[in-house]
Amino acid sequence: MQSASYSPGLEGVIAAETRISFLDTEQEEIVVRGYNLLELIRTVSYVDVVGLLLDEQLPDAQRRQQLERELCTAEVPQRVYEILALLPPAMHAMDRLRTAVSALAGFDPNANSADPEEERRKAPRLIGQIAQIVANLTRIAGGQPPIPFDPQRSFAENFLHTIVAREVSAAEVRAFDQALIAYSEHELPNSTFAARVVASTLADAYGALTAAVASLKGPLHGGANEAVMYMLLEAGSADALERLIREKLARKERIMGFGHRVYMRRMDPRAQLLKETLRELVAAKGTGAELLEMCERGEAVMHAEKGLYPNLDYYAAPVYYLLDIPIELYTPIFFAARSAGLLAHIVEQHAQNRLYRPRVVYTGPRGLRVGA
Amino acid sequence: MQSASYSPGLEGVIAAETRISFLDTEQEEIVVRGYNLLELIRTVSYVDVVGLLLDEQLPDAQRRQQLERELCTAEVPQRVYEILALLPPAMHAMDRLRTAVSALAGFDPNANSADPEEERRKAPRLIGQIAQIVANLTRIAGGQPPIPFDPQRSFAENFLHTIVAREVSAAEVRAFDQALIAYSEHELPNSTFAARVVASTLADAYGALTAAVASLKGPLHGGANEAVMYMLLEAGSADALERLIREKLARKERIMGFGHRVYMRRMDPRAQLLKETLRELVAAKGTGAELLEMCERGEAVMHAEKGLYPNLDYYAAPVYYLLDIPIELYTPIFFAARSAGLLAHIVEQHAQNRLYRPRVVYTGPRGLRVGA
Repeated sequence: MQSASYSPGLEGVIAAETRISFLDTEQEEIVVRGYNLLELIRTVSYVDVVGLLLDEQLPDAQRRQQLERELCTAEVPQRVYEILALLPPAMHAMDRLRTAVSALAGFDPNANSADPEEERRKAPRLIGQIAQIVANLTRIAGGQPPIPFDPQRSFAENFLHTIVAREVSAAEVRAFDQALIAYSEHELPNSTFAARVVASTLADAYGALTAAVASLKGPLHGGANEAVMYMLLEAGSADALERLIREKLARKERIMGFGHRVYMRRMDPRAQLLKETLRELVAAKGTGAELLEMCERGEAVMHAEKGLYPNLDYYAAPVYYLLDIPIELYTPIFFAARSAGLLAHIVEQHAQNRLYRPRVVYTGPRGLRVGA
Repeated sequence: MQSASYSPGLEGVIAAETRISFLDTEQEEIVVRGYNLLELIRTVSYVDVVGLLLDEQLPDAQRRQQLERELCTAEVPQRVYEILALLPPAMHAMDRLRTAVSALAGFDPNANSADPEEERRKAPRLIGQIAQIVANLTRIAGGQPPIPFDPQRSFAENFLHTIVAREVSAAEVRAFDQALIAYSEHELPNSTFAARVVASTLADAYGALTAAVASLKGPLHGGANEAVMYMLLEAGSADALERLIREKLARKERIMGFGHRVYMRRMDPRAQLLKETLRELVAAKGTGAELLEMCERGEAVMHAEKGLYPNLDYYAAPVYYLLDIPIELYTPIFFAARSAGLLAHIVEQHAQNRLYRPRVVYTGPRGLRVGA
């Protein structure tokens, strides 16, 4: 029954044709709608990238303004916040988010539409709603009322300000915005694949996004950024981190934040850039130098011992930490940032749909009879 | 950039190795844990099939009793019903179910575990909770309190009785039980694939099941059984159905309930068996002869005109209709029945895990520069 063509995890298998993005590992470039993602992180804002992903071109000033307004004025139905308040505070933040994204469908009269133009039109509203839900997750679990976004602030400032509930500096907003872009789109990772698989039944954007939240929760996927931070906090210093990593390696334990199926033994270009972001943030805030030192030590030890490079999660975690973001929100923020890329994929899937329905290799018994 | 190996929808691509089930189209047999699914539908109960799927063997009397008790005494947290009551009654039943399955995670202290043994242990509770939620969906949307299952009744009787809120005959329970078995497991359709893709991040059973609900909602997948019933009701008689189908074919519209990616131009064996079930139910109830005649006419027209055979949904819909089940519950019942197969796949995925992470063919632009 074995098939020569079976590739576990579909490694190396082409599962979609896309105009959205591509990991060019040979030229070490993450291509997003034709642009190098690193250039986007350095030169534009997350709102620009939302426009690029949805419209297939960077927005002009007018479109940019329209997008920022839609993102910042999207209203989260009061009922969705009431549902979140009914969930136990100890429930995993991604499970609370998954429930809220699923519930959002009830308040959209066109929720069942799988029409790509309808989905493209409502995408900014959805991205804005998701960001507001994520920004308020911890607050609601603590029994506090949600804070709505303020149309007078930029999207990135709103998002960060609502999470930390204090005024935020321009340097902090810029670091947060860069992390949003870094997470905005990345070809066909598990969560994007899950969203396209679900969308291919002509299920709508809410279902596909809900499936992506479920996927991103997994420790092998989005959950890694939180695991990185807990490891850094457990260690507490560069020397202690080096000891901790060496102990874990001796026990053959997985070190989170290193290695990537696609990049393999090259560095994730996003990690390099977020390391720059971390450095700039440490300089601007005048704090966090020990955290940076710790990260660099961990990177050096892992490269020496295993030849592995850090991935994006490894440097996003300390950036979020220095921004005073609760650790349980790291993966929800990943999803909020990625919702732009996910919606572009859902639109594309519905515009050129083919139901995903692969086959199996059966290795179980045959010919059994009831009562025999 | 085109790759010769790209198969849209992963058609014909092997995406998993499994001991659970296999569609043997050559021998026209649906194999479930070694047994022919049709023999299971004819000779055992859904509870037996739950045991077979989870334990890899048909249950003995003691295990069977234990399973039936677990399925019938699983408690749905009051908070989950409160969340359902907060959702708008007009929200699609599958969207309400998706939200409830996602919310269930909050009330399981081991919700985050991706340990296959833990998942196998709690599977009967989950299947029982899902059945109770499905059985009460329409009642809650109507502002009525949910009815819990009664441990004195069998699982199938509980499920049907709670939906229709009247005493049900043995013939009705048997027909419903047979439909549950027919939907219990079916290799790697989109929803099962979506569940395995999500589970492969080591996300837990709640996330994988939530993704499967999202997938099953799609009109190209689980949503088809409802579409069939609306078509039959729109027609109202065999002659009118024949006219309706011919008109739709002339307009090149899709006729729901016919054809199947895997069976192609053979008959879905489950459809043949559910047709028998429909006949027996019509005889036992002494009503529904016109509905049966209509279905047979539709089958004949589609075979003559398109060479297409009915699939399971085509004959499950009239069975449910004669059982007085609200049409909006047809797809939720499909999911409730399939939850047993899905949990078997989630357990299997976690026992031999490999992250799903395929690649793409990129057909978009390259080399664009910001501001250029």
